[in-house]
Amino acid sequence: MDNIINHQFRLAARPVGLPKDSDWQRSAEPVRAPADGEVLVQTLYLSLDPAMRGWMNEGKSYIPPVALGAVMRAGGVGVVLQSRADQFQPGDYVMGGLGVQEYWTGPANDRAAALVRIDPQLAPLTTWLNTLGMAGMTAYFGLTEVGQAKAGETVVVSGAAGAVGMAVGQIAKNLGCRVVGVAGGPEKCGFVVRELGFDACIDYKSGSLKDGLKQHCPDGVDVYFDNVGGDILDTVLTRLRMHARVVICGAISQYNATAPMQGPSNYLSLLVNRARMEGMVVFDYAARYGEAAARMGQWLRAGTMKSKEDVVEGFERFPEALNMLFEGRNLGKLLLKVAEA
Amino acid sequence: MDNIINHQFRLAARPVGLPKDSDWQRSAEPVRAPADGEVLVQTLYLSLDPAMRGWMNEGKSYIPPVALGAVMRAGGVGVVLQSRADQFQPGDYVMGGLGVQEYWTGPANDRAAALVRIDPQLAPLTTWLNTLGMAGMTAYFGLTEVGQAKAGETVVVSGAAGAVGMAVGQIAKNLGCRVVGVAGGPEKCGFVVRELGFDACIDYKSGSLKDGLKQHCPDGVDVYFDNVGGDILDTVLTRLRMHARVVICGAISQYNATAPMQGPSNYLSLLVNRARMEGMVVFDYAARYGEAAARMGQWLRAGTMKSKEDVVEGFERFPEALNMLFEGRNLGKLLLKVAEA
Repeated sequence: MDNIINHQFRLAARPVGLPKDSDWQRSAEPVRAPADGEVLVQTLYLSLDPAMRGWMNEGKSYIPPVALGAVMRAGGVGVVLQSRADQFQPGDYVMGGLGVQEYWTGPANDRAAALVRIDPQLAPLTTWLNTLGMAGMTAYFGLTEVGQAKAGETVVVSGAAGAVGMAVGQIAKNLGCRVVGVAGGPEKCGFVVRELGFDACIDYKSGSLKDGLKQHCPDGVDVYFDNVGGDILDTVLTRLRMHARVVICGAISQYNATAPMQGPSNYLSLLVNRARMEGMVVFDYAARYGEAAARMGQWLRAGTMKSKEDVVEGFERFPEALNMLFEGRNLGKLLLKVAEA
Repeated sequence: MDNIINHQFRLAARPVGLPKDSDWQRSAEPVRAPADGEVLVQTLYLSLDPAMRGWMNEGKSYIPPVALGAVMRAGGVGVVLQSRADQFQPGDYVMGGLGVQEYWTGPANDRAAALVRIDPQLAPLTTWLNTLGMAGMTAYFGLTEVGQAKAGETVVVSGAAGAVGMAVGQIAKNLGCRVVGVAGGPEKCGFVVRELGFDACIDYKSGSLKDGLKQHCPDGVDVYFDNVGGDILDTVLTRLRMHARVVICGAISQYNATAPMQGPSNYLSLLVNRARMEGMVVFDYAARYGEAAARMGQWLRAGTMKSKEDVVEGFERFPEALNMLFEGRNLGKLLLKVAEA
């Protein structure tokens, strides 16, 4: 494989605020041929996720930070080019932690990469990084297990036009909930209502979120699925119903903040309303991904759930593509297309 | 009863910050004789609780605010002087919402007052306003139901030398937990360790709470019972174990704040640790008070639980006595002694 070059993005510095170009180091090295038990995978699509910003910081979290100088961590789908392992054949499509690089060589049973075969007949490759991938799993288990959403309840989800938000809203609709999204701008709000069937979506940039919640959730909020933190979390807390559940999935509004983290000053609404705020990390549900994929697969086939991806083409555009997440410029799951399938 | 005068404290103004003397209106009126179905109760002790500060504010909460001009709401124990109701006889001791006044006349089945007969042979009158009253019930159900504390777990409780905190720590010890208190000053800390059997108590005023938590909870915190909010809540959040439970019972550090409420800026620890923060209001467990009283009564008789009261004598001292709570000057359950039993 000496004549093929593997281009990579490595973490050069821990960003302060929004990642900038100098936080990345571009590298290029010959593709390494697989040893015994190993496979060589060509990256086709990479998943760009808000959580990646957290992985760039130093300090204890739910997984170790990316080391300085290491290839940036990312999930992706790829195709097996060579295999010296029983589990995979050349031509197999796989999903796993490929990293921000064009090729991945390693043990077929590598724990960090956690490669699994995917079937492009069942769903397009991009869907495997979205509804049938981490975003969909996060939404499914966050809403059903942590949020305990039940038919007839009112579910509010922020980041409604992001990958997790879109899935949360559609899963909730399939469960018989009333769904109100929160998103920035008329395009996003219009999309989730018209295309995805949300009952309403509040454009927090163009009006008062509080008034929107009063209008669209007159009896209050049973489940709030929070992807953003900050002022939006704080405002929704004022509108909880008794025994409400707040699912803490992320806080994208705070990931690039250089000021101290903003805590939810209205948290005593949890006391008044006997409500709960609970965090979740999708990896805890790994043993049950199949169950969720089967159920969401049914909804996708039945047309009661749609998988929407926003694809940026070109490996070299990784830095700007990642920042689109934090600038709120993506509509649906943001993917980087690295090579043709 | 025309020759007996009932002195009262009424709410004259909604306080800004710590209640001041001009927020109270002293009144005096003849004691009203009971009508048919009514009783006349003489107040013996009044319970002084942090929650009373919240009742003085305008706005929606878990119970309506005290109206301006109304007798201040308070729980108390008293003795029945006259009865024209079947439920009570003169000489009976009762507990209920007597208000900040020397005498209470009203229907024996008044819902707001919720009078119940208590047995001074089973426990002293003051214990009925403490361990066997709201403070004990709050501690018991907050710790066992919301906090789900289990033997072998580490429980941290703030306001450890207050009525609820003392009960929380002692209940947790009886359940087989390791208990670390947080309190202000060496006297309080020494008391809960030496007299009540806490494993440790961190004096947040004299050193670093964070260092104290590292020392006394090296494996982290399973259950945090929060009575204070503010910086203490924020610091404990950084030391949660996986699947920890944070019980939000109160936020005494914030009740008199005139600045905006301080939210817990480290709330994303809930995500990293798959932890939960949940509010509670003791009234929800009213149907089960008997169960808790029976269990705590056993512990009191066995000597594995102690009821500690801090009694201020003299009805006229109500305003200064209430403020002792917010100035952290009480050790144990703060009571106002109104008359001799």
